[in-house]
Amino acid sequence: MTLHGKQLIGHAAVAGTGDRFTAVNPATGESLAPQYAGANSQQIEQACQLAEDAFDSYRETSLEDRARFLEAIAEAIEAVGEPLVERAMAETGLPQARIEGERGRTCGQLRLFAQVVRAGEWLDVRVDPALPDRTPMPRVDLRQRHIALGPVAVFGASNFPLAFSVAGGDTASALAAGCPVIVKAHPAHPGTSELVGQAVQSAVATCGLPEGVFSVLFGAGNDLGQALVKDPRIQAVGFTGSRRGGLALTELAQSRPQPIPVYAEMSSINPVFLLPAALKARGDSLAEAFVASLNMGAGQFCTNPGLVLAIKGPELDRFVEAAGAAVADSGAQTMLTPGIHDAYTDGVGKLAEQAAVDEVARGRTGDQANGCQPGLFRTDAADFLENEALQAEVFGASSLVVACDDRDTLETVARHLEGQLTATLQMDDGDTDAARALVRILERKAGRVLVNGWPTGVEVCHAMVHGGPFPATSDSRTTSVGTAAIYRFLRPVCYQNLPEALLPEALRDDNPLGVSRLVDGQRER
Amino acid sequence: MTLHGKQLIGHAAVAGTGDRFTAVNPATGESLAPQYAGANSQQIEQACQLAEDAFDSYRETSLEDRARFLEAIAEAIEAVGEPLVERAMAETGLPQARIEGERGRTCGQLRLFAQVVRAGEWLDVRVDPALPDRTPMPRVDLRQRHIALGPVAVFGASNFPLAFSVAGGDTASALAAGCPVIVKAHPAHPGTSELVGQAVQSAVATCGLPEGVFSVLFGAGNDLGQALVKDPRIQAVGFTGSRRGGLALTELAQSRPQPIPVYAEMSSINPVFLLPAALKARGDSLAEAFVASLNMGAGQFCTNPGLVLAIKGPELDRFVEAAGAAVADSGAQTMLTPGIHDAYTDGVGKLAEQAAVDEVARGRTGDQANGCQPGLFRTDAADFLENEALQAEVFGASSLVVACDDRDTLETVARHLEGQLTATLQMDDGDTDAARALVRILERKAGRVLVNGWPTGVEVCHAMVHGGPFPATSDSRTTSVGTAAIYRFLRPVCYQNLPEALLPEALRDDNPLGVSRLVDGQRER
Repeated sequence: MTLHGKQLIGHAAVAGTGDRFTAVNPATGESLAPQYAGANSQQIEQACQLAEDAFDSYRETSLEDRARFLEAIAEAIEAVGEPLVERAMAETGLPQARIEGERGRTCGQLRLFAQVVRAGEWLDVRVDPALPDRTPMPRVDLRQRHIALGPVAVFGASNFPLAFSVAGGDTASALAAGCPVIVKAHPAHPGTSELVGQAVQSAVATCGLPEGVFSVLFGAGNDLGQALVKDPRIQAVGFTGSRRGGLALTELAQSRPQPIPVYAEMSSINPVFLLPAALKARGDSLAEAFVASLNMGAGQFCTNPGLVLAIKGPELDRFVEAAGAAVADSGAQTMLTPGIHDAYTDGVGKLAEQAAVDEVARGRTGDQANGCQPGLFRTDAADFLENEALQAEVFGASSLVVACDDRDTLETVARHLEGQLTATLQMDDGDTDAARALVRILERKAGRVLVNGWPTGVEVCHAMVHGGPFPATSDSRTTSVGTAAIYRFLRPVCYQNLPEALLPEALRDDNPLGVSRLVDGQRER
Repeated sequence: MTLHGKQLIGHAAVAGTGDRFTAVNPATGESLAPQYAGANSQQIEQACQLAEDAFDSYRETSLEDRARFLEAIAEAIEAVGEPLVERAMAETGLPQARIEGERGRTCGQLRLFAQVVRAGEWLDVRVDPALPDRTPMPRVDLRQRHIALGPVAVFGASNFPLAFSVAGGDTASALAAGCPVIVKAHPAHPGTSELVGQAVQSAVATCGLPEGVFSVLFGAGNDLGQALVKDPRIQAVGFTGSRRGGLALTELAQSRPQPIPVYAEMSSINPVFLLPAALKARGDSLAEAFVASLNMGAGQFCTNPGLVLAIKGPELDRFVEAAGAAVADSGAQTMLTPGIHDAYTDGVGKLAEQAAVDEVARGRTGDQANGCQPGLFRTDAADFLENEALQAEVFGASSLVVACDDRDTLETVARHLEGQLTATLQMDDGDTDAARALVRILERKAGRVLVNGWPTGVEVCHAMVHGGPFPATSDSRTTSVGTAAIYRFLRPVCYQNLPEALLPEALRDDNPLGVSRLVDGQRER
């Protein structure tokens, strides 16, 4: 597969006519061929119409056919081989092991959703049989299944060029639900996007699916994304990125004649609570593990531990000292884009400027372009509670330690937090009471509560919640990682008194799909 | 129980100081004592704070305790006895049988949600056990359950003084989910609201729950509702009413610093397709049944059949003639409020004014105040497709027959429809092919697809969907009737590596609640 710099619309590859841009290697500043020209309005229109045309056929593919399609995508991505790894490394500055790991995660995610499709739990089949003899009124036969919402617009994320971009979690879950997908490629990694897009195109062809099931469009500015969100054929949006970006898309989607859901995963500082017994028993190892989590991927994870809370005292001082030493010893890692590096520098600068914030340590500056110089800062709970600016996410390796007077203050700070993707407790046996009280507070604040782990590292599984109250996401009832992500793209339909000939296969009496069902409210065994 | 005209805030009854209003008997125009004074801002504040204070305790009540609470509410409502029926009749103009039936539905709904709470399906428990030996990376223990969103504001609906008001479907499902509820009583039936509110208050006391679990506030204008939706402690909103009202609340909720979901059930004209074989075989009985559905409750149902579609010809002419005769023979029924009657008169007038619309028949005028004079109108598909105004809901007994040239036109009109709560097919064996094509179109348009029934009459069961794409509701992924309504007030939380002592009961290894679980993605049997 070679790069052509073209829009991938259904089976075709066509040159855009919009603003031209190229990828930039953030480590060297060099431009990477080919040049991409943004999708024009006719191309956007065409991709949307193809998606709409494909929808009715695609949403009723058999579970097996749809599962095989997801597996075919995984195979096609793997078949791209080393060129994909090389291009992704060049476009993101991320190291080879990370990109290879992310490719594995991406393909594993597609295969997991294939299993989910086959199992059919997502259909949420409910059958309430007719009760013709019920008094005072008989009950008619009522059955429910979930169906796909319609074509979905997916915005590729800058920080996961594979796992949350063209064939990432949003795409995999939308395709699994039966929704055609139009991806807006992230302009920071267009070549990676084109390679993965070609792989998906080939899977669509191999599987004999209607071509409109999948398209990738390119564009450097906001116009393409806005046009997609406003298109009446688009029925839902998946987005991972900044709070500002997510809010703008949500507002746009709400202002449509027919509003649609936007699943925006936005902003989180992922508080970590170091409880007293744990801090006392293993402060040094906590400091080491904390800084490893902080520095992972130059801190460019939604789950980066940007806030550390503990009770004042010599144990905390020692932790801060050890963590500070580790940060000071940290080499600069290349950030994803010059824009992200600038925003990081700006955010760290604003944090350091705050009167009540002390700089504990900064990492080494390094020679390369766009290097992330990690930062560790410290403040007091009273100052943190007074100043909302201290809760602002700094995307990159930056963290703020908040020193609290006592357990009550820890809880007060916890209650004061905005919504988060994660909240973590480091605890030992002596911390159980304190931890119990905090879990009750934190489960209201975060989508995932962890004990004795670090928030970076998000397992793709059935129980995962990568979501949480605003501003972590725009819809706390959902997750963007894990198999429950499929529910974002489904809605329930009730079928009343349909003759067998008209009933969807999932709802037939003999349960030909063998799916788990709720019959009269009881789980069938 | 007697009426005091007071706000019910927690355990207390306190006089409001806002605008004063009384209920009006719509059949006679007489004012009904007592006078109600609107809740003031301090009282709104107090109800919200009590709800917030109650939340952490209430959301962790045992399944059994919460189920018993719902049952205690049903018992307390039944214990009010005849005064409730009499007051509801006086405030709504609805007949005794309807009110008694609705009381039965309301109490049955509460008891059904008690069963749902006990069964625990709503917890959606998922367990992905640790895989310490997995390569290349071990998996840590991950478990998911759903928890309540927080205090919910419920807007009483004018057209269901019991089943969708103070202790109606929104309240029952929110309480079942573990959310405290603050009801904004509908100003058209304050006395009914107060009586039911007192019953819920007594159940809160009997069950020993924190008083903030439930409050009812009164107000004549929009201020109270707006204040509730804007209050930072309120985390979701349930509303049944007009499109304008629902959109205003949705916009307000989105403009909060922390946006929250609004579940607004708004506008639907509930298309009924009369397919050729059915129309030929049983046009007269269809006409009779259609007019019975149209006139039920003076047409004041969200699922009233406001649109009839069929292919032109002598069979349709005969149906229209028979339906017209039945409409002309229909007596006027008292509408719920003077305002609803005015809007109905206005809406029917606007429909009749349309150049392309013919009046088929109007019912009798009757002598009483606020009588609904049913209307049946007819137009051609070409005109319907050109004029969006013909899709506007007229709340009350009014329906428009759209004559189509052929099957293709039926499908074109179906595709052209806005989102609906329901879509109905009247069909016989010879209509199966036409019906199959329409079901595929209509399941994308409606929350419920019916065959050979009428959309009025919404069963409260597990498979029901009383929802649908915009503008039928503000969130097509949900239902406001049936047990799945509980999911509107829940969000998932993932617990990673929690020691047994901290795990919520629902997630413990030995499954002490005995709930259905997804273990490693497999439904446990």
